[in-house]
Amino acid sequence: MGVSLKDVAQRAGVSIKTVSNVVNNYPHVTPQMRARVQQAIDELGYRPNLTARHLRKGRTGIIAFAVPELGNPYFAELAGAVIDAAAVHDYTVLVDHTAGLREREVLVSQEFRAHVIDGLILSPIHLENEDLLARQESSPLVLLGEREYEAPYDQIAIDNVAAARTAVRHLLDLGRRRIAFLGSRTSRERRPAHLRLRGWREEHAAAGLRPDENLVVATEGYGRADGAAAMAELLERGERPDAVFAYNDLIALGAMRTLTERGLEVPADVAVVGFDDIEESRYGAVTLTTVSPDKPAIARLAVDRLVERLAGGTLSEPQRIRPGYRLIVRESTRTRRTGA
Amino acid sequence: MGVSLKDVAQRAGVSIKTVSNVVNNYPHVTPQMRARVQQAIDELGYRPNLTARHLRKGRTGIIAFAVPELGNPYFAELAGAVIDAAAVHDYTVLVDHTAGLREREVLVSQEFRAHVIDGLILSPIHLENEDLLARQESSPLVLLGEREYEAPYDQIAIDNVAAARTAVRHLLDLGRRRIAFLGSRTSRERRPAHLRLRGWREEHAAAGLRPDENLVVATEGYGRADGAAAMAELLERGERPDAVFAYNDLIALGAMRTLTERGLEVPADVAVVGFDDIEESRYGAVTLTTVSPDKPAIARLAVDRLVERLAGGTLSEPQRIRPGYRLIVRESTRTRRTGA
Repeated sequence: MGVSLKDVAQRAGVSIKTVSNVVNNYPHVTPQMRARVQQAIDELGYRPNLTARHLRKGRTGIIAFAVPELGNPYFAELAGAVIDAAAVHDYTVLVDHTAGLREREVLVSQEFRAHVIDGLILSPIHLENEDLLARQESSPLVLLGEREYEAPYDQIAIDNVAAARTAVRHLLDLGRRRIAFLGSRTSRERRPAHLRLRGWREEHAAAGLRPDENLVVATEGYGRADGAAAMAELLERGERPDAVFAYNDLIALGAMRTLTERGLEVPADVAVVGFDDIEESRYGAVTLTTVSPDKPAIARLAVDRLVERLAGGTLSEPQRIRPGYRLIVRESTRTRRTGA
Repeated sequence: MGVSLKDVAQRAGVSIKTVSNVVNNYPHVTPQMRARVQQAIDELGYRPNLTARHLRKGRTGIIAFAVPELGNPYFAELAGAVIDAAAVHDYTVLVDHTAGLREREVLVSQEFRAHVIDGLILSPIHLENEDLLARQESSPLVLLGEREYEAPYDQIAIDNVAAARTAVRHLLDLGRRRIAFLGSRTSRERRPAHLRLRGWREEHAAAGLRPDENLVVATEGYGRADGAAAMAELLERGERPDAVFAYNDLIALGAMRTLTERGLEVPADVAVVGFDDIEESRYGAVTLTTVSPDKPAIARLAVDRLVERLAGGTLSEPQRIRPGYRLIVRESTRTRRTGA
């Protein structure tokens, strides 16, 4: 009973992170290291995420991570990072799918399974400030993502305006002057204009340029099909951008497919930048330049805040935490490689 | 209390499936239909997946779906289908991540959260037959995937041998004779040879051909990086296939990236077929021919079996159910489109 990752790490003479890597079956562990850790696991009878210790404290050892879209690799990759970060604290993660619906977001934030879940990490889309203020559940909640709330909860998000400006700056530096933005929200939604679109506007202004608002295309959702349709719409309107900054990688990848179908070359005719750095962006025929939020840091910060609040003790005020990001330049804004 | 999807459907005068589509925020619903269903939802005060009715029956209304890899879009897409299928029965789905580790698969199959979960759908990788026979938990369990067990549980999987033969047949029909198989397992694993590799062998034999075993490449995992490395290994060994049949789409997409980097054209030099039909396969610069398992059918069959067993009543024997699949021919085995 009660063998922890730490016990395994001590027995094996390695770091907790290494044990976590083995337990999570990460590829970058050598077979020797894997064998050594496995031996310690076998000797100690360690069971990952065993809930016994948590139960002794009146907890279940389970935290929920609620995402709007499992089909978006960004959230799948982030979920993997959250699972890893939670394993370090012997927490199991249940992944909830809200479909980005306000009513489901309210449901999970009210913790309709309070007897099961110690705390919640939520990446909301349509949740309103009033929903959070009306929350009666007292279990810890950490919010992730672009939206900002006036509510007493920890919020973790990169600086989306600054990140978007970095992407637009890169395209301006390449001499591009007709930079489309794909993935603004439709007017039917009450959400504030996206921070990334604001970054697009601000960076143009900072360069003394007036961006062409005809190059902003709203999309229904955030998927590849939305990006393909938005790009087609732009071209059919007779607009011919020399660059695209997409709300996310999926929209960028969909747009690139449309460009290929129309015989336009990336990046020669149209340079493309995405946002998220999903794995897929590194494997296309033309790899995608993208803004890469630091997913491991986002996950670690979220889990650490949650665990800190679960532990009680001296609690700090709710904070807005800004993890890092970086622009990763790939072929979609470089001369295309022609092969070895 | 107790408003169901069915009540909403009756009030709105539409099918349960339509209500489910609206609740799940599917894109193919017209705004008019969405408004009509939303009105019925508002009037009745319907809450998706409200657990009240389940609790009255001593259940939680929650089923778990345990997958080996959230980062693999196949499982993310399948999870979406399971969530939809479960919503029809007012069940909420929690997604568990096993990382394909036997100990985690045992843990979830033993239902370490029996007080929380009514039943489990599990897609195992390393779970052994003995683990299932030793299972003490009596809650319903449905198994998905390629592996076959001698244990009294419903098992749902397409006919992997036949599906692989269809893919290889397609390549042989195109006149390809050096068809590589990427993604066999390494010898270190005790698993039986993959059914898809068996299909590769059988279809060659059926055509009176002897496949070149030098064209079979084992991979460590099932991701894009594994496919890219396997393709590179093959080329560096001096083998030059004229076609690739990959264990899954991710391996195929990784292999295509390597081919692009080496200046080889798909499909002119090397035709490529994957397996899974993940959305990404439809959006690359060269779209991917693939075997498409019927994911909605797999999800529906799994949920329906689970719900049937939860309902008690006359229970049938555990069954092996074979959902359908089809080969979807795209650009990676066709003349490449050169644009409009």
